[in-house]
Amino acid sequence: MRTVDLIYRKREGEELSPEEIVFLVNGYTRGEIPDYQISAFLMAVCWQGMTDREVSALTECMLDSGERVDLSAVPGLKVDKHSTGGVGDKTSLIAAPLAASAGVVVPMISGRGLGHTGGTLDKLESIPGFRTGLSIGEFQSQLQKHGLAFIGQSEQIAPADGRLYSLRDATATVESIPLIASSIMSKKLAAGLDSIVLDVKVGSGAFMKKQIDARRLAQMMVGIGRRMDKRVMALITDMNQPLGYAIGNALEIMEVSQTLQNAGPVDLTRLSLELAARMIHLGRMANSIDEAREIAQARLLDGSGYRKLKDVITAQGGNASVLDRFELLPNATGMREIYSPRAGFVSAVDAALIGQASQMIGAGRDTKEDSIDPAVGVILEVKVGQKVDAGGVLCRIYHTREERVDEAADLVEDAFRISQHAPEERELILEVVG
Amino acid sequence: MRTVDLIYRKREGEELSPEEIVFLVNGYTRGEIPDYQISAFLMAVCWQGMTDREVSALTECMLDSGERVDLSAVPGLKVDKHSTGGVGDKTSLIAAPLAASAGVVVPMISGRGLGHTGGTLDKLESIPGFRTGLSIGEFQSQLQKHGLAFIGQSEQIAPADGRLYSLRDATATVESIPLIASSIMSKKLAAGLDSIVLDVKVGSGAFMKKQIDARRLAQMMVGIGRRMDKRVMALITDMNQPLGYAIGNALEIMEVSQTLQNAGPVDLTRLSLELAARMIHLGRMANSIDEAREIAQARLLDGSGYRKLKDVITAQGGNASVLDRFELLPNATGMREIYSPRAGFVSAVDAALIGQASQMIGAGRDTKEDSIDPAVGVILEVKVGQKVDAGGVLCRIYHTREERVDEAADLVEDAFRISQHAPEERELILEVVG
Repeated sequence: MRTVDLIYRKREGEELSPEEIVFLVNGYTRGEIPDYQISAFLMAVCWQGMTDREVSALTECMLDSGERVDLSAVPGLKVDKHSTGGVGDKTSLIAAPLAASAGVVVPMISGRGLGHTGGTLDKLESIPGFRTGLSIGEFQSQLQKHGLAFIGQSEQIAPADGRLYSLRDATATVESIPLIASSIMSKKLAAGLDSIVLDVKVGSGAFMKKQIDARRLAQMMVGIGRRMDKRVMALITDMNQPLGYAIGNALEIMEVSQTLQNAGPVDLTRLSLELAARMIHLGRMANSIDEAREIAQARLLDGSGYRKLKDVITAQGGNASVLDRFELLPNATGMREIYSPRAGFVSAVDAALIGQASQMIGAGRDTKEDSIDPAVGVILEVKVGQKVDAGGVLCRIYHTREERVDEAADLVEDAFRISQHAPEERELILEVVG
Repeated sequence: MRTVDLIYRKREGEELSPEEIVFLVNGYTRGEIPDYQISAFLMAVCWQGMTDREVSALTECMLDSGERVDLSAVPGLKVDKHSTGGVGDKTSLIAAPLAASAGVVVPMISGRGLGHTGGTLDKLESIPGFRTGLSIGEFQSQLQKHGLAFIGQSEQIAPADGRLYSLRDATATVESIPLIASSIMSKKLAAGLDSIVLDVKVGSGAFMKKQIDARRLAQMMVGIGRRMDKRVMALITDMNQPLGYAIGNALEIMEVSQTLQNAGPVDLTRLSLELAARMIHLGRMANSIDEAREIAQARLLDGSGYRKLKDVITAQGGNASVLDRFELLPNATGMREIYSPRAGFVSAVDAALIGQASQMIGAGRDTKEDSIDPAVGVILEVKVGQKVDAGGVLCRIYHTREERVDEAADLVEDAFRISQHAPEERELILEVVG
């Protein structure tokens, strides 16, 4: 078997056998196949795609490259939730406590944010004292006690994916449906889960710009799960405007707290409840999805989701009183208001631009090595469909350094579109796959 | 400027500016951009192609990476001929002496064969004593004296192309029209030429399998030449069956000798005359292409082309009497005949398979480091359209070692298709571009 022949066959659109995929991935991981051949192969995959058989072989091979978390000592079905990444997406921090308070075991293995979308770990770390570096033993015992624990992804999980991801990042081969699907699924399947609820974002603020691509990604991940006997289902949700009003790590923790007290934004509440319901259903805590929705709703209204998050923050060393006293969270030192140039209806709030602006002032990273500023971000005052007066506040930029705030303000201004007429209503949950 | 952004834009099908192309090629040549980014870029070029402006920028940049041969001391218009590579293609050794004997200055800078197509240098080196390693001084003085000299490509000519070619070879990115066009043209334009006649092969035995691709390649090379004020024209010619009857280095020298004595195969004679006529016309030794054809024909019939080749062989240290006494050339020690399984008409002789069989027994190289066996090869007994009896000889394999002859014989057998009816006649010269 020659690597160059396999690259050639992929560029010609042929299907490689599982053995051939294993040859490439293991050869690369062992250092026998050089970077430059794999990067050409990855670009050929961006071009020609992968069949379901190929993507399953790739996923299994990356999964086998590292350790697996053994959660068999923890009783109950383990259900995780994963989002492909959006701007202002803090649903994990709402849906997971709701599902856990309904009896589902939720081992949340999360990543850090890269680019203009935030990571769950980064958000949690804005809480003073919060530890994400639990040992596997601590993780297991917390799951047994609270049904929910948050942990960072270890270097030992799917290391082949880590190496491939770095190479993809440097060679413009990140945006490929089979490569994204196998990367997500290899990490999730290594975590000892029974089921996964996926939130596949589509729109300007997401990796997937088109619904047809989001659907293909969702179908691919559901298929990978099925071939490995895991129940996977996916919601395809809109990411043209940010989710909720808050973008930025500590700012999003505040909004999580409000939402778990049933005083959050409508869109964020609705999507979080639906994700929680799906987790409750897959975790067999309800016989139907409608029953699961009722349970999720009840856990929101009776405050048990809110208390669950407090318990988990305390268990992981964090100061849970931040959820009531926002002044205990890192706070920005400066604020800039962005005004509407005219009266009208907000017809678009471009999530990508808002995300880039937040990243620019320190809420996100350019590279894995960058540190982030937990205090900064953007709070929207209006969202799509709302009315605004000329000179009315569109949003507020919270910052700690003046540097680049002008540039961020320009981006944010560009993000808002104000029209004479009310825009058509847009669906938040576009599709269910699996 | 970030390399990853340029790769991304190319994968999205955008045009890069000349400055951006220069950034990539120079960065790579200086070792500032790693192999793995360039191989991803090359695969993106295979996918998305290049515009005329991009391919010209790439060509100039590779040209500027090395030395240029200065032939201004040699009077007269310099015209070279280049083939994209075919099986049994020895037209350079016929057309160049014909054009030179008509007064054109022909500085033949040739490469070595790689894969299943033979190189002009390899063929010449089967002549005992023949030296291809002339100094630039020797090259110039031989051109002044004989109007024709053969030289190998120096490492100092377009070294960026050399580095890129090695990377392409290892990453299945060889077959790309803009990459092939810029590679050929950067080397040719460094050689101090005024005009170039290109023979773009199309068919099973060529890089280009489809006429539309061959046409695009021809147009691209003509365009590159035009933008650099060089007159370039291209013939697109059939390479579904081998050219002539002989495939293999010394065997082809014998056929060259016969053809220059007007006793060669019809197809080879016809194409060589047409190429010579184009060279004579571009070299302004005739006012029209028809007049140029008459001159080429006359130089063939009066033996002046044949004498020119003898003079040049002698000038470069070779034993010119091999052209009359074939026993002085390296000769094979064994021969195997391949018989027709039934009576009928030859409807196909697959050039790729014949080429692969010759390569297998030592007539070609797998890698640049391989040595070749000048004596071995294949002599066809019949070509497309000819009648054959059941058990009649289709071809003869000449070899020096038994090893792999069985395998080669199987390939050669597969190459012949015998039908009940005579096949439709196929054009040899399909198109003229430029």
